[in-house]
Amino acid sequence: MSSAFKSCRSVLITGANRGLGLQIVESLVSGSFCPGKIIATARTPATAKELQRLAEKHSNIHIIPLDVVSEESIAKAAVEVDQIVQEDGLCCLINNAGINVIANFETVTAEKMLENFHTNSVAPLMITKAMLPMLKRAAARETGMGIHRAAVINMTSLLGSVELNWGERANNFKWYPYRTSKSALNMITRCMAVDLEADGILCMAIHPGWVRTDMGGQQAPLSTEESISSVLDVIGGLTEKDHGSFLHYTGL
Amino acid sequence: MSSAFKSCRSVLITGANRGLGLQIVESLVSGSFCPGKIIATARTPATAKELQRLAEKHSNIHIIPLDVVSEESIAKAAVEVDQIVQEDGLCCLINNAGINVIANFETVTAEKMLENFHTNSVAPLMITKAMLPMLKRAAARETGMGIHRAAVINMTSLLGSVELNWGERANNFKWYPYRTSKSALNMITRCMAVDLEADGILCMAIHPGWVRTDMGGQQAPLSTEESISSVLDVIGGLTEKDHGSFLHYTGL
Repeated sequence: MSSAFKSCRSVLITGANRGLGLQIVESLVSGSFCPGKIIATARTPATAKELQRLAEKHSNIHIIPLDVVSEESIAKAAVEVDQIVQEDGLCCLINNAGINVIANFETVTAEKMLENFHTNSVAPLMITKAMLPMLKRAAARETGMGIHRAAVINMTSLLGSVELNWGERANNFKWYPYRTSKSALNMITRCMAVDLEADGILCMAIHPGWVRTDMGGQQAPLSTEESISSVLDVIGGLTEKDHGSFLHYTGL
Repeated sequence: MSSAFKSCRSVLITGANRGLGLQIVESLVSGSFCPGKIIATARTPATAKELQRLAEKHSNIHIIPLDVVSEESIAKAAVEVDQIVQEDGLCCLINNAGINVIANFETVTAEKMLENFHTNSVAPLMITKAMLPMLKRAAARETGMGIHRAAVINMTSLLGSVELNWGERANNFKWYPYRTSKSALNMITRCMAVDLEADGILCMAIHPGWVRTDMGGQQAPLSTEESISSVLDVIGGLTEKDHGSFLHYTGL
């Protein structure tokens, strides 16, 4: 794990109840160092048993409820985050929560498209807007760009790449709602990078690889530990040159 | 205008009440040749006065109502199109209807994002699904790929390109809902190209340039006539090599 995380005072991870989000929390606290405050969100914390077990062992984990498609829930979460991070601000927002509403050309409906778009594309934008005051506060305390200052990381997927959606990859994953939502997220990432640059807030998207999670399935080549170990290395090492970028979990 | 349109038996244009859609109808009927049937859709045909005037002069123009975000309206339109094109099928579907829900980082809301995505991204997908039986019927009558057989053309925008959203272009147009919807449309175009290929239905996206319409504003460099003259040349000349492509109105 990169040493840059040493100076990261706080990280917020959405969708931390399972899969990659849970692994991020686990990898952060079990490493040899760890951000001062880890804010882990889940739609219904009461059912996030593994996350709760982690929080019982590590007092720097703060679990807060967040339904990413609810405006009211986002506003409430922002108030809670504000109280947790206080004058330090929020150094790193990881928009990880995501769903895969599987549908091909025959089965896709407008509702399925809108549902996946709302969760995977719109929510990261609305959450970033809500957390902006805290991100700005963190950014005002440091210089340069990176998670020591303030950063927004969007978990994307290579399946969202229009350029790569041709040939074998295209035929294997005919997921209209998911692919579309990740393409949209990539555009939102670029738009936000333009707008947050003046405040010194780094913004980028990262592809975690194909991982054995509920979403990725058991045939995926990477374990969550392998993926997130690499992802956190990349996130920890982000600098100005990575602003507005799309990186693979390998850092390329 | 390309001579390929000579052998195109029918064209459907969504959003034909104004702007580029209206110009497509006008340019098709005023050319030296013209598709056998031009189906022009408008949300409320009663208020589409210019389109009505054109239809009064040209009996091959069929105006049908279509609210692109209404499942019921799409289903009704498909029945009407079926009756108009009959055993010939539909040779060319131009998904032109689009809106620009202008919003920057400060003013964007989930509702604005969802609204623009529904009209500009989801609707072309749902309309293509509804028209598929007619497109397949047209495709079954010919060989090769192009509008002489069957084609789906999505009107996109360079503003939907993630790659190009950096530097000057990014700063000039901070349109979160519109940019995102066009990125999503580009992904949908690629997905559909994969799925419609086996039926011999060409699918591609075209950028009409920056045009003086209600959406483009008066400072845009291109007139609707200039843009659509080029766009129709490109559409008329599409072949196998353009399947799944994104072309500029210049054909590049």
